[in-house]
Amino acid sequence: MPTTITAADLRAGIEAFYAWHMQLLDDGRIEEWAAAFTQDGVFTADGHPEPVSGRQNILAASRQGADKLAEAGIVRRHWLGMSDIRPDGGVVRVRSYALVFQASKGEGAALHASTTCEDVLVLDDGGSWRIRERVVRIDGA
Amino acid sequence: MPTTITAADLRAGIEAFYAWHMQLLDDGRIEEWAAAFTQDGVFTADGHPEPVSGRQNILAASRQGADKLAEAGIVRRHWLGMSDIRPDGGVVRVRSYALVFQASKGEGAALHASTTCEDVLVLDDGGSWRIRERVVRIDGA
Amino acid sequence: MPTTITAADLRAGIEAFYAWHMQLLDDGRIEEWAAAFTQDGVFTADGHPEPVSGRQNILAASRQGADKLAEAGIVRRHWLGMSDIRPDGGVVRVRSYALVFQASKGEGAALHASTTCEDVLVLDDGGSWRIRERVVRIDGA
Repeated sequence: MPTTITAADLRAGIEAFYAWHMQLLDDGRIEEWAAAFTQDGVFTADGHPEPVSGRQNILAASRQGADKLAEAGIVRRHWLGMSDIRPDGGVVRVRSYALVFQASKGEGAALHASTTCEDVLVLDDGGSWRIRERVVRIDGA
Repeated sequence: MPTTITAADLRAGIEAFYAWHMQLLDDGRIEEWAAAFTQDGVFTADGHPEPVSGRQNILAASRQGADKLAEAGIVRRHWLGMSDIRPDGGVVRVRSYALVFQASKGEGAALHASTTCEDVLVLDDGGSWRIRERVVRIDGA
Repeated sequence: MPTTITAADLRAGIEAFYAWHMQLLDDGRIEEWAAAFTQDGVFTADGHPEPVSGRQNILAASRQGADKLAEAGIVRRHWLGMSDIRPDGGVVRVRSYALVFQASKGEGAALHASTTCEDVLVLDDGGSWRIRERVVRIDGA
């Protein structure tokens, strides 16, 4: 991470990354979404039986989930917020809250889940954020 | 848009604008709220039968809605977030998620709607953001 | 408040403060949470019979609430957002929306309350934000 970046620039950049990234997921653009993990990225979630390792496996797992939602006519909106951002050597550790809302024609909109999301972020050679590790824990699970 | 503005300054300015603007709406200060649209602003929403054009018409349409809520003793809170912000020539295009919560004495608080909000923002001569176009789509509508 | 701080730096700093502070509360780290009030801080909330004055009393009142939630197996997540931030002489006045979500094993996740949160913030000698006054009003109360 460039050592000259201010805390405000860091926060703005990470918030922009999350907004872009969550919108990709919710729009079903899973290939682009998965590309924001590092090649060796690891995604651990309460909903997964075990951690998913590697961008290709993360893509496959999420593709399946996205297809099921699309077939059921369900739109999800992932809100990430209240991010605590801590540079730590060459990485940035971020602990956020994440809410998942979902809507469909029959059911209207409702809260689906409240979670915490712990990321280890790295900058790639092009200066874009990539997720090396993500751990999502569902509140009340 | 000044070409010297950083991404962090742009994001902070737009977030400040949205916070101020949504609080005006929810406080029933509709005249001030409508003034944040350009004179020729266009507001398209799933709830409107057709796009509303011009600040005066946007004001009239929203005044009616705000009066009905006030009579019914309903408070709404508009949360805009997850904003993807893209400068595009002289304008800024922003795609956000927006949640509407509502509360009343009898009913407590509840999620009212999950939406997407697509804005075209411009800076006026005084350096304040104005909405030239807004499109709100209700999830699951 | 240093007069040289930009609006973007101010917003980023306050958002970082709120994220850190709300996570302390929701994690039950009440002593650290209470330390972010000034020694003579005043916390007024619809849920309190009268304003709570002084860091020690704020700590005691919140300790009790946190213990009850922990015993009941309830996790709360406080989301603060849509912050309107106004420097005012040596202090900063912030009016935000705050949502409280809660989750437990039996009940899943649900919206608990929608509120407004009005703060008077000051910088302490070490450059950290402290809350001198907080007023929380529950929507629909």
